[in-house]
Amino acid sequence: MSTRLGELIERLGGELRGDPDLMISGIAPLDIAQASHITFLSNPKLRSQASLSKAAALILSASDDEAIGASYPGARIITGNPYAYFARTAQLFASQRQIVAPPGIHPTASIDSGARIDSTASVGPHAVVEADAEIAGGCVIAAGCFIGRGASIGANTHFDARVVFHAGCVIGQNGIIHSGAVIGSEGFGFANEGGAWIKIPQTGRVVIGNDVQIGANTTIDRGALTDTVIEDGVKLDNQIQIGHNCHIGAHTAMAGCVGVAGSARIGKYCTFGGAAMVLGHLTIADHVHISSASMVSRSIREPGNYTGFYPLAKNADWEKSAAIVRNLAAMREKIRELEKSINSLTKN
Amino acid sequence: MSTRLGELIERLGGELRGDPDLMISGIAPLDIAQASHITFLSNPKLRSQASLSKAAALILSASDDEAIGASYPGARIITGNPYAYFARTAQLFASQRQIVAPPGIHPTASIDSGARIDSTASVGPHAVVEADAEIAGGCVIAAGCFIGRGASIGANTHFDARVVFHAGCVIGQNGIIHSGAVIGSEGFGFANEGGAWIKIPQTGRVVIGNDVQIGANTTIDRGALTDTVIEDGVKLDNQIQIGHNCHIGAHTAMAGCVGVAGSARIGKYCTFGGAAMVLGHLTIADHVHISSASMVSRSIREPGNYTGFYPLAKNADWEKSAAIVRNLAAMREKIRELEKSINSLTKN
Amino acid sequence: MSTRLGELIERLGGELRGDPDLMISGIAPLDIAQASHITFLSNPKLRSQASLSKAAALILSASDDEAIGASYPGARIITGNPYAYFARTAQLFASQRQIVAPPGIHPTASIDSGARIDSTASVGPHAVVEADAEIAGGCVIAAGCFIGRGASIGANTHFDARVVFHAGCVIGQNGIIHSGAVIGSEGFGFANEGGAWIKIPQTGRVVIGNDVQIGANTTIDRGALTDTVIEDGVKLDNQIQIGHNCHIGAHTAMAGCVGVAGSARIGKYCTFGGAAMVLGHLTIADHVHISSASMVSRSIREPGNYTGFYPLAKNADWEKSAAIVRNLAAMREKIRELEKSINSLTKN
Repeated sequence: MSTRLGELIERLGGELRGDPDLMISGIAPLDIAQASHITFLSNPKLRSQASLSKAAALILSASDDEAIGASYPGARIITGNPYAYFARTAQLFASQRQIVAPPGIHPTASIDSGARIDSTASVGPHAVVEADAEIAGGCVIAAGCFIGRGASIGANTHFDARVVFHAGCVIGQNGIIHSGAVIGSEGFGFANEGGAWIKIPQTGRVVIGNDVQIGANTTIDRGALTDTVIEDGVKLDNQIQIGHNCHIGAHTAMAGCVGVAGSARIGKYCTFGGAAMVLGHLTIADHVHISSASMVSRSIREPGNYTGFYPLAKNADWEKSAAIVRNLAAMREKIRELEKSINSLTKN
Repeated sequence: MSTRLGELIERLGGELRGDPDLMISGIAPLDIAQASHITFLSNPKLRSQASLSKAAALILSASDDEAIGASYPGARIITGNPYAYFARTAQLFASQRQIVAPPGIHPTASIDSGARIDSTASVGPHAVVEADAEIAGGCVIAAGCFIGRGASIGANTHFDARVVFHAGCVIGQNGIIHSGAVIGSEGFGFANEGGAWIKIPQTGRVVIGNDVQIGANTTIDRGALTDTVIEDGVKLDNQIQIGHNCHIGAHTAMAGCVGVAGSARIGKYCTFGGAAMVLGHLTIADHVHISSASMVSRSIREPGNYTGFYPLAKNADWEKSAAIVRNLAAMREKIRELEKSINSLTKN
Repeated sequence: MSTRLGELIERLGGELRGDPDLMISGIAPLDIAQASHITFLSNPKLRSQASLSKAAALILSASDDEAIGASYPGARIITGNPYAYFARTAQLFASQRQIVAPPGIHPTASIDSGARIDSTASVGPHAVVEADAEIAGGCVIAAGCFIGRGASIGANTHFDARVVFHAGCVIGQNGIIHSGAVIGSEGFGFANEGGAWIKIPQTGRVVIGNDVQIGANTTIDRGALTDTVIEDGVKLDNQIQIGHNCHIGAHTAMAGCVGVAGSARIGKYCTFGGAAMVLGHLTIADHVHISSASMVSRSIREPGNYTGFYPLAKNADWEKSAAIVRNLAAMREKIRELEKSINSLTKN
């Protein structure tokens, strides 16, 4: 399959400098693109690589075009955000190759007679859909998914194989949940009585907005008495844990292995690096960015970039610095003594 | 459904100050409870909020009752541990609303003829139960669970959808295992020979006591030559990894994303904050409490609270402190030099 | 079942000092081995324990044999690498007890007519195999596995119950993937446009070599435009996350809960302790060893051992040291002031 360059412009915009009838077979990075590909330049450091690319066409910004447009022999598409344009172009090519799951319910699926499944939805082999669950048009519920009683899945949402989506939970339109994710498991709530733990029932739901993506083997617990909420446009990578009653603001993104303890309230447009951790009951403002492997132990009221991990060193060097870190209070005391000695010397 | 306040007292104890014929429809937190609800005060800081609550009844301690009982217009239940009383009240209301899985084996389940399943147990769609597995009375084995050959599941234990419980493993009574958990996977054991890894077979079991709860997507490996042991009353949150041959003492609780390396021996009544990590072959005493994101790299012989994570800071501030941490040995050397200079000045 | 000591030597080598007709029923650690067992000594610190062992036979090195051979009454096998010999002996005994999955496809499995499954492979209940997938001879695809369209699985590779292996992915021979692992989920790739995230399709594969082991609930994402690559002999423990387009060199081993962000390139013969984290787009040389809970934030060009975690302390001590770490820049400034004061005193 190939696409006319002109068709790309009609669909995605941008200013074309080159032949609209050029046929493009796919998209590839600068260094491996071949003569039938389109490629993209989103990092000015790669300008010289771009000007040497074999690709038939190049997506780039106006300023990069000023710098290298003349030296690149192929067609160019000028756009304000080349990386976003790349993403949309890649979507277009991917959609041409995509094998669409056929509508209808696989004969091996186990569907309660009280479930409401739109006729345009696809339900795969060995999937289970319980009573009163609702699956809207265009959904794909792949092999082995479990959809609990009364759950609701919005239009065109896609669950990969073996997603668990528990009773009463809700997700909006155009969502994606990857394999092994568990949505709506019971939160971790206990009262302690004489050392033993008494279970607090978890009767809230998980309520997820539109355009949300949830990664493989990620878990989101249902609320205790009220709901866990994931707003529109949130993107969660793999192996993430979201505790009960958390609230995650719109368009916030979290990389793999992040953990958020219960009742944390996270703002909109935040980002979390891999394995960042957030304690429970904290509030994090909008536009906060947490580095990988950093532990958020207090609320953050101001937007900005925050970090907290121990710097890596050769093992022997770490041994030294860690030993001193353990004894920093002694070092501070020593400095105070020196200061006193100097003060008394100065006075003399 | 509603419950008489007097019935609550008959079942759960406590001293009632108010009308036993009051009907209660459910339990809710102080701030959102409505006129038909019961609520609870477990934190004295919320006394003023409690006295303004709209709830029909309030669970509280004797000392909190002295402080605000007069100002709160509804009925009160006085109890020594209001949070535990709340948990039990919530259990009561949840049990009234719970949809009980019907006893019997779903026709799509795949059951070996040598499996022994009590007639009061429930086995869901597409579950698999292998030969010689034993499932006791009152168990719920939900959709898509896998129960390996010779595994044993005690009375009234509940597996959510898609639990994997491998061959030979054992769990006692009244347990709960959440979706996606894998119990009895092979431990990570290899001998190194010239750089390559030779697999050490993992032939032990996982043996789990009574009243244990295991979270979604948590993994517990079987032992190598002997067993991995989880004692009574242990509570494990989601995304936890327990290595082979670990031993976790009774009533210890671990929050999400904790990792425990192989052969660690952890005491009773311990708690672990989220993403705490424990190295292998360590011993941790009873009543040890590890903070979130802290790394336990040596055995802990004394009860108490232990912490070890790098404090979060604005990124620029972290850059500065991390650079100094890397060079703490140089700073210590500088201090020693200053001390010598001062000493020689003092002598003069 | 029992094995002649002489047969062990014939299969695994080593020098026997003792009766080759001795029958051995199994292998056990030094401290619990009984009279019918063979045991092993791989750590010279345990020499005195070994000399007292009840086991019928002992695997040990020549130097340990010099030290304790005379005092141990049983048979001895002298070998250069007793731990590797132990591993192979344990494999031998385990293979005698192993229940082999019968070849053939379980009647409840859902197999596309275009899948190619060798007649010696075993496919378990409720497994799903899509079109054009290829499963070679001797494979075991256990209950509830999902094998996507066009995936390829090499000879004698074993998937435990409920593995997800997505479309187009490839694994070589003699591999093991444990329950709940998800191979080939979509990578986490988005372009940002005005705060919202635009999905970048993930059209690469995961390509895995021979003799690779992957732990329970581990996730490996497919590449974006090119592939994620796991070379021969790599061993990954449970709960690991490998991002899109990573490349992991041969015989590298990672303990549980490790996270590797996208496009990291990791060398051969590396080891990673539990919960170590690697940022994206880094390069790590061969023979690099990262300690548990350490964060790799820059490329590592030299082999060696690297560490970076905050040392654990009693909570009150940590509070003190963490407060000073936050203000290390002020401490450095104070030292500079003291230095100036001393210098001016010295000049006077």
